[in-house]
Amino acid sequence: MKSINKRKIINDPVYGFINIPYELLFDIIEHPYFQRLRRIKQLGLTFLVYPGASHTRFQHALGTMHLMTLAIDILKQKGTIITDKEAEAACAAILLHDIGHGPFSHALENSIIPHCSHEQLSKLIMHSLNNEMGGKLDLAIELFEGNYQKKFLHQLITSQLDVDRLDYLRRDSFFSGVSEGVIGSDRIIKMLEVVDDELVIESKGIYSIEKFLIARRLMYWQVYLHKTVLASELMLEKVLKRARELSLMGINLFASPALKYYLQNNTFEDISRMLNNFVELDDYDILSALKEWQKSDDIALKTLADGIVNRNIYKIIIDKNTNHYHQISRIKELILSHYKISEDLIDYFMFEGEICNNAYNIKDDKINIYKNGIKEDIILASDMLNIDVLGKTVKKHYLCYPKYIHKEL
Amino acid sequence: MKSINKRKIINDPVYGFINIPYELLFDIIEHPYFQRLRRIKQLGLTFLVYPGASHTRFQHALGTMHLMTLAIDILKQKGTIITDKEAEAACAAILLHDIGHGPFSHALENSIIPHCSHEQLSKLIMHSLNNEMGGKLDLAIELFEGNYQKKFLHQLITSQLDVDRLDYLRRDSFFSGVSEGVIGSDRIIKMLEVVDDELVIESKGIYSIEKFLIARRLMYWQVYLHKTVLASELMLEKVLKRARELSLMGINLFASPALKYYLQNNTFEDISRMLNNFVELDDYDILSALKEWQKSDDIALKTLADGIVNRNIYKIIIDKNTNHYHQISRIKELILSHYKISEDLIDYFMFEGEICNNAYNIKDDKINIYKNGIKEDIILASDMLNIDVLGKTVKKHYLCYPKYIHKEL
Amino acid sequence: MKSINKRKIINDPVYGFINIPYELLFDIIEHPYFQRLRRIKQLGLTFLVYPGASHTRFQHALGTMHLMTLAIDILKQKGTIITDKEAEAACAAILLHDIGHGPFSHALENSIIPHCSHEQLSKLIMHSLNNEMGGKLDLAIELFEGNYQKKFLHQLITSQLDVDRLDYLRRDSFFSGVSEGVIGSDRIIKMLEVVDDELVIESKGIYSIEKFLIARRLMYWQVYLHKTVLASELMLEKVLKRARELSLMGINLFASPALKYYLQNNTFEDISRMLNNFVELDDYDILSALKEWQKSDDIALKTLADGIVNRNIYKIIIDKNTNHYHQISRIKELILSHYKISEDLIDYFMFEGEICNNAYNIKDDKINIYKNGIKEDIILASDMLNIDVLGKTVKKHYLCYPKYIHKEL
Amino acid sequence: MKSINKRKIINDPVYGFINIPYELLFDIIEHPYFQRLRRIKQLGLTFLVYPGASHTRFQHALGTMHLMTLAIDILKQKGTIITDKEAEAACAAILLHDIGHGPFSHALENSIIPHCSHEQLSKLIMHSLNNEMGGKLDLAIELFEGNYQKKFLHQLITSQLDVDRLDYLRRDSFFSGVSEGVIGSDRIIKMLEVVDDELVIESKGIYSIEKFLIARRLMYWQVYLHKTVLASELMLEKVLKRARELSLMGINLFASPALKYYLQNNTFEDISRMLNNFVELDDYDILSALKEWQKSDDIALKTLADGIVNRNIYKIIIDKNTNHYHQISRIKELILSHYKISEDLIDYFMFEGEICNNAYNIKDDKINIYKNGIKEDIILASDMLNIDVLGKTVKKHYLCYPKYIHKEL
Repeated sequence: MKSINKRKIINDPVYGFINIPYELLFDIIEHPYFQRLRRIKQLGLTFLVYPGASHTRFQHALGTMHLMTLAIDILKQKGTIITDKEAEAACAAILLHDIGHGPFSHALENSIIPHCSHEQLSKLIMHSLNNEMGGKLDLAIELFEGNYQKKFLHQLITSQLDVDRLDYLRRDSFFSGVSEGVIGSDRIIKMLEVVDDELVIESKGIYSIEKFLIARRLMYWQVYLHKTVLASELMLEKVLKRARELSLMGINLFASPALKYYLQNNTFEDISRMLNNFVELDDYDILSALKEWQKSDDIALKTLADGIVNRNIYKIIIDKNTNHYHQISRIKELILSHYKISEDLIDYFMFEGEICNNAYNIKDDKINIYKNGIKEDIILASDMLNIDVLGKTVKKHYLCYPKYIHKEL
Repeated sequence: MKSINKRKIINDPVYGFINIPYELLFDIIEHPYFQRLRRIKQLGLTFLVYPGASHTRFQHALGTMHLMTLAIDILKQKGTIITDKEAEAACAAILLHDIGHGPFSHALENSIIPHCSHEQLSKLIMHSLNNEMGGKLDLAIELFEGNYQKKFLHQLITSQLDVDRLDYLRRDSFFSGVSEGVIGSDRIIKMLEVVDDELVIESKGIYSIEKFLIARRLMYWQVYLHKTVLASELMLEKVLKRARELSLMGINLFASPALKYYLQNNTFEDISRMLNNFVELDDYDILSALKEWQKSDDIALKTLADGIVNRNIYKIIIDKNTNHYHQISRIKELILSHYKISEDLIDYFMFEGEICNNAYNIKDDKINIYKNGIKEDIILASDMLNIDVLGKTVKKHYLCYPKYIHKEL
Repeated sequence: MKSINKRKIINDPVYGFINIPYELLFDIIEHPYFQRLRRIKQLGLTFLVYPGASHTRFQHALGTMHLMTLAIDILKQKGTIITDKEAEAACAAILLHDIGHGPFSHALENSIIPHCSHEQLSKLIMHSLNNEMGGKLDLAIELFEGNYQKKFLHQLITSQLDVDRLDYLRRDSFFSGVSEGVIGSDRIIKMLEVVDDELVIESKGIYSIEKFLIARRLMYWQVYLHKTVLASELMLEKVLKRARELSLMGINLFASPALKYYLQNNTFEDISRMLNNFVELDDYDILSALKEWQKSDDIALKTLADGIVNRNIYKIIIDKNTNHYHQISRIKELILSHYKISEDLIDYFMFEGEICNNAYNIKDDKINIYKNGIKEDIILASDMLNIDVLGKTVKKHYLCYPKYIHKEL
Repeated sequence: MKSINKRKIINDPVYGFINIPYELLFDIIEHPYFQRLRRIKQLGLTFLVYPGASHTRFQHALGTMHLMTLAIDILKQKGTIITDKEAEAACAAILLHDIGHGPFSHALENSIIPHCSHEQLSKLIMHSLNNEMGGKLDLAIELFEGNYQKKFLHQLITSQLDVDRLDYLRRDSFFSGVSEGVIGSDRIIKMLEVVDDELVIESKGIYSIEKFLIARRLMYWQVYLHKTVLASELMLEKVLKRARELSLMGINLFASPALKYYLQNNTFEDISRMLNNFVELDDYDILSALKEWQKSDDIALKTLADGIVNRNIYKIIIDKNTNHYHQISRIKELILSHYKISEDLIDYFMFEGEICNNAYNIKDDKINIYKNGIKEDIILASDMLNIDVLGKTVKKHYLCYPKYIHKEL
């Protein structure tokens, strides 16, 4: 019995040690669906810019479970009643919160994987696991879906104060080496309180929350929306679109069976078949395919695949306005002549669009500060933060094309 | 020769190792005036709230010298010309920037030490050192006083981007254990640049600067203006005032000769005598006197001294408005009856006043971001920070009185 | 020009920032051979035990380059002459020191990749790169091969004091979360000195070196030779052997072309073809193949592949003697009946062998302490370390078989 | 009630946050006897070498209480029964374990404070506190004195595995900046177990213990017995001896009443009076006296006091043998002529003696590793450590005299 206990401590570079407090959690972690998360990097292609960012969704999921146990302990110390069964379920729910994530999520969702059913995917997997486990996840699913009476437990799983964010901001900054994104997740958790079934922050935690918001913003612009990361993700989206295009034409590309399934289908009516392929898909399917596609005869597929594999990332121009786009026709011209392609392939060599960061949207960002018996939105409680600005969505335009072309301009 | 070199590396918990790059700096450090800084805590009575905050001005001065050498290296790498003589002088100037500080600066300046001549004191000591050293500090003094042509060197010593702040914010948060105040001083220094003889921050450093401002604010309210720290400093001010009052009445209190000099004088016409006493004064004079004064017959002296020594700090109420003050007459009444004192001593048992934090005053806080050839104030460059608020001085009122009385209210 | 300079700073979670000091190094890093290291985990399957250990050889190679620049700076400060050309070459050599490493090195070398020519592989790749680069790596190769006059530069690249070890011990302990393996690489580098063209450690560094040896030992037993890691690597070796066996029988297994080349060949006479396939091989070829092999009809291939992919690692018993092996025939029996296999497949379900850790072999471990003009081996200079023990190779036996069988025993 | 709870969290730079888990502990901390520890530096004059080492016994005592709560939690998780009353008492005992320490302990005990009764002093203070507190410390004292049935609780307070060492090694290395002395106190505590009422370490903790022993040794030679620290402590011992000598002659030296009491007495028959003076003595009495003594007419007092205050520390030669002592008569001669003193004062200018570090004495150092049901001494369980050497006491000789004289040799 003791030897089993020992297996339940995991070393973690961020928190030191992570305990697995309940048997159920151990069973979830051992399941192939969860083990798959070992093969999905948390930050997709970000490692092309921040080499340290090779951490996985597996580590992140364990981290959220760890913070959940800390948060529950603190709340219990402050008098909030949380039963063991609820604590176990909250931990199970947070462990599974990313179970429906595929590899390189955004790029794949924008290309070959059905985007609309993402939420559905997550729930399908959880319910499938729950069936296997004989209903042991009933409460966890209830919490996850927000159907349980104690709303604050759902808020710990998903809200502006959830342990998901508290872990990923800290973990992503830790591994990327952008140390200024590091947040005091311990300290914030120590400030948590439940008032009227709602999570709030003690008033003296206001400065920590301000810092948390600033750190989040820093991480967004410096890491998550870093321009080279963005360019490489756009390239991945494009290369997968091209691969499907070619596959649907009947060209046989190197790919694992699971990836092939997604390349060769446009609609996914047989949900259960789709799901079975989905839980087989990870970073290894994608990158090992890209490595072969580099050698393809198709100039679009080849250029994009080589770009990602060997880090020949397209030039990207990001700006608040579109002033820089006056050169578009010149760029197009250069691409057509340099790559000797017909115009229908131009979208694989030059692409434009919009990114936005509405992370500080007032509606979403409601973090309540609790002072003298009153709850107040951090945005109002803080005299440092600019509510007008925070309320606005920041939109930027981007334009992307091969570096070689950029030199010719 | 090698053995001398080795002596010039100092272990520092914050930066690991600090090198003393020039002989001149070594000579300054060895001087009794500088050694005195070993006996002056950087944060005065803050250790009563944050027990770790026992670090000294000596450590801080070495830390600023370390950051100065880093900053100079970076600027040189980016093409700014800085001669060895200038580098040495900049290091000497920053080493000496706090040489005129006495123990528990604010409390003493508000009670027994001539406040008005603080600036003068600093310069007097530097000039006195320069005399002893045969003019070797000429350039350092020029830099310090802002009279040297390369203005950016003066800005490194004193400005919104000076290495003084970069060290003390990091060091104070490190030792107090308020880890969220920790700033990325290395990163900020890496972003420094000189444009038109002025320090600026590279545009990609904008998020680091935002974080620096938030961290500074956090440190102000959480540490520097922490209410218990404030209350204990006010008590120190009061106890010293009372001690002088008694001394001027001819009562002989226990005190070191240097402290006695300040207690027994109201005016300090003989500047050189004043200076000689000043450079003898440190934390040890004050605290060893307080320890004796606890046993005094004078109820005011005794109560205040005991309060500081044994951490019986007065209750302090801080608020944006004075609503809480309606109880003043009741508090007064309770004090008079409890301590059996006459009304002329009331000021030692109850005091009120104002604190303000104008740390983000627009005029002072000009930190320039450099982007596309243009310098822009961080306050304008950032779309996160609230300029209207930052431009305002935050004023708060305080009211202070013994905890015992508070319980009776 | 400045924008290029900026690209040459890389964030690293271990050291903060890594500068790329020379253009040549930047060109090496951009080459596909070097980019391949992004897809090879530094510690192979160790992530199955330490989830954080997902760092890559790419990060490690950059880390060694960083330490090399620190070491060269320190030695130059202490008077050792090192030209810019030598510094550049030393950095290039250390960047490339692992370029010949394949994925999961030990397992692959013991199964499908020609083990004997490993050294040759490394050199072939370096020379091939040198050809492409027009001889710019001449000096780096000379240093790497130990043919250059200044021997200490070779020692920095490979010896008991090399920057390779200083980086990997620190980095591996950092990412695995085994924080006690962390060594003070900065401090050790500060203690380096060159005496008679040989690297030595200043005498006051003796305690740091003792600690380095202890930390290394801790990392060996706790991480590198962790029993679950060992078992999974043995399983990988076995599954690849089985895959080749099946391939040679003409069975077509899912595999990338590069991996197929190694599976379908036993001898590699066409060196250049072998090399071309080698530089295409990385973790992604192996793991994506394993994922398919789980579904194989071959019970050995299927069991082993599933074991690695879903972390159903065989039980492993490690001991100084072979006492535990009396149950071998019983284990065999259970395996044959449980898996319904013929005896010729038994080696894929039960394997035994020896591991040894001679990391402290006297001959190899010569780290010289320099005191009062005399060099002395750390083993003699230290009165803490046990020379008799350190001189001995520690050998241990292991026995490996499915967990299911273990439960039946 | 909640506001009281909040006051019970203390920021600590080493552990982040320290909780005060019981009311009783809060009451102890608030007592003037305990508050006195704020004014006693943990490492005496070590700050003269390591400026960061300005941390106090107050911080250390809180740190040990923190580790005690961790250790008790771990042991309880592993099935050892510890009642709340026992936990509270163990925390109280460890909080008070240093209550009998005076300032600059060794130097004072070797000069003016009765050395023999040190143990007695500690107990006298604890019993005195217990009286004040109406017997609430009964169990704590029982634990402290080793009279309680559960021996392992006493071992947590004082043994080779006690939380005292686990805190001070980590804290002292943290503040001194000698980062290699940092031990994984969390990890060691996680390995603790109670077997047959005795503390043991789980077998997999063997490497951590090896590292702990090496780190301890490093701290001894690098910090605790650092030669400049040693020289300054010897000087302090001497200056206090001289001060008493002069006081007993009737000369009135500047000193606080408490210090005066010790200077003017040779025997301390009135225990209770002695005690009352003892609990008033701290660093401030000593250093503020030294500052005045610099100006004394007595050449011995003046030289020694100035040496400590202004860091003019005597030269110290430490060696395994006494070979270096052939110059003693020459040194003596130079001293007599330089300082123009008579021979009876020579002991204040030149002193010799022995230091020994028997920190690894077999008898004391029994740390038991628990493996397969058997306890084994770490010294035997480890194949790395040299038992013969560890069993021996390392003795070294020292010789001390003014630096000025050294230059003349």
